[in-house]
Amino acid sequence: MRPVVRIVDLGAVGVPASPSLLDDFRDLSRADRRPDRPGGRGLVLAEGTVVVRRLLASPYPPRALLGVPRRIDELAAELDGLDVPAFVTDAATMADVVGFHLNRGVLASADRAPVPDLGALLAAATRVAVLEGVNDHENLGSLFRNAAALGVDAVLLAPGCADPLYRRSVRVSMGHVLRVPFVAGTWEELVSALRAHGYVLGALTPAGDVGPAALADHPRVALLLGAEGPGLSAEALALADHRVRITMVPGVDSLNVATAGAVAFHAVGSPSTAGCG
Amino acid sequence: MRPVVRIVDLGAVGVPASPSLLDDFRDLSRADRRPDRPGGRGLVLAEGTVVVRRLLASPYPPRALLGVPRRIDELAAELDGLDVPAFVTDAATMADVVGFHLNRGVLASADRAPVPDLGALLAAATRVAVLEGVNDHENLGSLFRNAAALGVDAVLLAPGCADPLYRRSVRVSMGHVLRVPFVAGTWEELVSALRAHGYVLGALTPAGDVGPAALADHPRVALLLGAEGPGLSAEALALADHRVRITMVPGVDSLNVATAGAVAFHAVGSPSTAGCG
Repeated sequence: MRPVVRIVDLGAVGVPASPSLLDDFRDLSRADRRPDRPGGRGLVLAEGTVVVRRLLASPYPPRALLGVPRRIDELAAELDGLDVPAFVTDAATMADVVGFHLNRGVLASADRAPVPDLGALLAAATRVAVLEGVNDHENLGSLFRNAAALGVDAVLLAPGCADPLYRRSVRVSMGHVLRVPFVAGTWEELVSALRAHGYVLGALTPAGDVGPAALADHPRVALLLGAEGPGLSAEALALADHRVRITMVPGVDSLNVATAGAVAFHAVGSPSTAGCG
Repeated sequence: MRPVVRIVDLGAVGVPASPSLLDDFRDLSRADRRPDRPGGRGLVLAEGTVVVRRLLASPYPPRALLGVPRRIDELAAELDGLDVPAFVTDAATMADVVGFHLNRGVLASADRAPVPDLGALLAAATRVAVLEGVNDHENLGSLFRNAAALGVDAVLLAPGCADPLYRRSVRVSMGHVLRVPFVAGTWEELVSALRAHGYVLGALTPAGDVGPAALADHPRVALLLGAEGPGLSAEALALADHRVRITMVPGVDSLNVATAGAVAFHAVGSPSTAGCG
């Protein structure tokens, strides 16, 4: 028999006692700090219909939903055939469960998915971003959003990056952290895999000597980006084939790392977009 | 006699009663809602040494500073010759005055400056951004930061934009709203001035038919940007010479408006930067 989403009307049955899958949404502000979850780094949580849709289309196995009737109804097509509970309630009860008022009206929880194989990822990709020390969850989320929009096929996380699956990153990325595959590794692991798959490595730095468009003709490009402020480490800069510079007005601070990434991704271009405009 | 900044040590003299210029920093979270200030729209407030420096180098007349000794000391060169009080105190007293803990250690207040003349601004500029309906203070601040970095000489505010001088915009812009001149006006006022000064008008829209680089050879370019979500109005699109598109992966939401602006500013290029990379 085809599985169906199990609608649980909290108004009719009351709020279930723990343990229940409703616990996934309890005290949500601490959701990123639950070491008891698979992977030991918290659940994956999606907020709002747009992001919940991306979660349901992603490799992350959904566990449960919580939402007001209108939002759950909007997701009917995506929920069809899904064997998970969907807790339906009003905004006030939802706020009680979650611990604060949430104006997006729907949440979904999921388990973490297996980490993709780095070699297979690089074999399938032509444009990747390699991030170092990007430990700000909003910047990380924005980078994934920009990567998804501008045709970056995968993100590699060199040392010092935050976890892209933190709730805030998922939200700021508009759910694209669930769509753009990522793998973390040491510089040695990442660079040897990139070399084995024929990537040219461009490191973004104000001291660069070529613009990002100079890499546009390469079949496979890896763009290395460091955190705002410190930028890339000397180790990362030494590993790159090219030092890439976004020309800026003298005396102005560098761009935000996600913005710099967008400018560079666009200038390098991608076969996934219909050109680089 | 050369004026000097008047250091007022609150530890020695105590917190002055109102009225005092210290009031500029009282209850800071409401600072944007004080109709009693010149222009009727609140003071200009700068937070942190980087932004305070930009304020002191801007056309906005400074009124007072409040900071911990270390930060006020760092600003000694910029404060030299400035006839305003600098209230010096510890972080706890500062938090009492401001109404919350502020981890940047220094604040400056200023009056609003006269609005620049639109014609003079456009005569001196070669690249301008024209914003419509950008009513999010963070996006607006980010747009100014990106404009400053990428050689945009002025920002024109078409209907529906927020006030760039709100405290949050000033902070997110890293103080560049104080550096990049801006003028608000109706579409009719703005477009007739742009035409009179020979600007080509490019409207950013997903339905565009040229990339932003197609405008790079024009001596004077105005890029029209609408808010994330609605985008530019039909009126704005009808006014433009070109509909400009940033090529994106199909099915991905549009970029954040400040990011889209950065990508387009970079691709159009500016004589203020040494090329467009």
